[in-house]
Order: sequence, then structure tokens, then C-alpha cells
Amino acid sequence: MPGSSAEDGPREGEVALGFDPRSRADASLCVIGHIRSPWAKGTAPRNLRAARETGRSARIELLPGFAPGLAGLGVGQAIQVLYWVDRGQRDLIVQSPRHTDGPRGVFALRSPVRPNPIALGTVVITSLDAEAGIIGIDATDAFDGTPVLDIKPWISTVDVPPGWRPEP
Amino acid sequence: MPGSSAEDGPREGEVALGFDPRSRADASLCVIGHIRSPWAKGTAPRNLRAARETGRSARIELLPGFAPGLAGLGVGQAIQVLYWVDRGQRDLIVQSPRHTDGPRGVFALRSPVRPNPIALGTVVITSLDAEAGIIGIDATDAFDGTPVLDIKPWISTVDVPPGWRPEP
Repeated sequence: MPGSSAEDGPREGEVALGFDPRSRADASLCVIGHIRSPWAKGTAPRNLRAARETGRSARIELLPGFAPGLAGLGVGQAIQVLYWVDRGQRDLIVQSPRHTDGPRGVFALRSPVRPNPIALGTVVITSLDAEAGIIGIDATDAFDGTPVLDIKPWISTVDVPPGWRPEP
Repeated sequence: MPGSSAEDGPREGEVALGFDPRSRADASLCVIGHIRSPWAKGTAPRNLRAARETGRSARIELLPGFAPGLAGLGVGQAIQVLYWVDRGQRDLIVQSPRHTDGPRGVFALRSPVRPNPIALGTVVITSLDAEAGIIGIDATDAFDGTPVLDIKPWISTVDVPPGWRPEP
């Protein structure tokens, strides 16, 4: 997310944890593939809605061995993509992003600067090469080359909060 | 998820990666807290919808230092909770769960058995003690003591796929 706190150094009201989350290493992650997108630092849209408005699509390229995991997915289906957005600091527990009026806790923000920098994008499959392990997606706000951690089917009965209705 | 593949050994049609995702360790995670729930192996509901139907609530207890990250969240708000469900095997790329008719790729399943065993629950905040770092949530399918990795605000404009409408 361009303009997010830690990329430019601390701002007024920001609070650090007092330890580096990296130093704990309670569990380890395996990269399963990478996002290929038109975006780099300075050009990426600020979120998935803005990315969708650009009309630029993207794709996920899985690493060798992971392609059989796509069996059962289809074009038009919505998926949740978890990706790794580690861009430096992981200890900023209170942040002052430019788009909010004052400091806010990291768990109330979608900032990439967080203790575990896992980002989540809900996107639609636009093409699928299950043999090569390549998934076309309708949009992403991720930089080209961003490591992918997981893909899950989006399921309305569990992924929409109870009682939520879209505005008419 | 009770009855998911690897807890009972391999089944017909299942495919393993040929390497252990643990051995790659491309990045490391820090536990930020734990889920307190009524559930253990054998008693947990099979997904979040089933959990909600039990009427049993749950809570998240953050570890020391992380509570300031809650500033800006409020009761009634929907959040995404990412939690770590590592229960053994991480290399089963094609699985045969009991509830599907035949084998399916792990990326088409919400099984806890996956290369990076990160689960995602979209829940509603029912109480909030921002000083103690305790968040009441309306439901969870996670075992008591499950490690929590992240909390994010749920935002309809990015977390609902474009064009999705609930059934009337």
C-alpha cells in the first residue's frame, strides 16, 4: 500500500512493539508461487477495489509440484489469495497512515506493515492452466513477484459476516 | 476440520508433494495470541457456519505487547482472523475428504491440511477489552489454544467478490 507508515520512517503517534516479530519465528512458511502483476513500488493501486478499477488483470504462477492442488477450481470462481508483503518493519503496532485521521492499531488496518505481513485478496479466476499451475485473476494490488502462501476457495456461507447485505 | 484427510493416513486418490513444505522455511511467523474456544479434537464444528449454529461464542487473547494494535476496532465490527492449524502433514497436495465425491486439490478445499496451514475466519466482535487485549467473537471452529497470526478489519468493498449477491 503506497503511503503506508513504515516505508517513510515513524510518524506522530506511532508505537513500536519493543521486539522484532521476526526474532520469535514460532512457525515457518513455504512460498508456493508468485504473483505476476503490472505493479511495482510507487505504481501499485492502494487496495483491491482500486486495482479492479484499473482494468489490469494479473496471474499467479505456482512453483513446481503445487499445480495438482488446483484440481476442482474453475474459471469464474472466487478465491482468497494469501500473499507475503514483507517490506521491512514488522513491529509497528500503532500506525498513522496518510488516509486515516490519526493513529490506529495495526489490527484495524489493512497495512502491509504488520507483525505477520500476510495480505489477503479475494479475486475471481479468469483463466486456469492446471497443468502449468498458472491462474489468471481479475485484479491484484500486489507488486510483481510477490510470494504467494495459499489459495482457498471463497465460500459465501463462511466468508460473509452473518446478516451482511450489499447496498441496493 | 474433523474427518479431514491426513489425520487418518492417506486415502485413495491422494497425492503428496514429494517434499515437506516445512523444510523450505522461506519466511517465519510470530504468534500474536491464542483462540479460547469450547472445542477440541473430535468436538469442533466442521466449519464456521456450523460453529455459529451451536451458539457458542469464543474469544481471542493477545500476547503481551499486541493489545495497542486493537485501537480503532469496535463491537459489532466484522474481522478476519488468521490462525495456525498445523496438525501434522503439510505435503498432501491432492486430498480425499469425506464430504467430497472424490479427490480434490488442496487449493479447492478449506482443509487445515495444507502447505501453509493458515486458516481464515470472518467473525463479528462481540466484546472488546483493548487494555487486556481480549476480543470476544461470535463463533469459531478452532480448537481451544489455537495460535493466532493476524487480525484484519473485514471490508465489504474488497472482501466480497465483484458482482456477488446473497440469495433472497
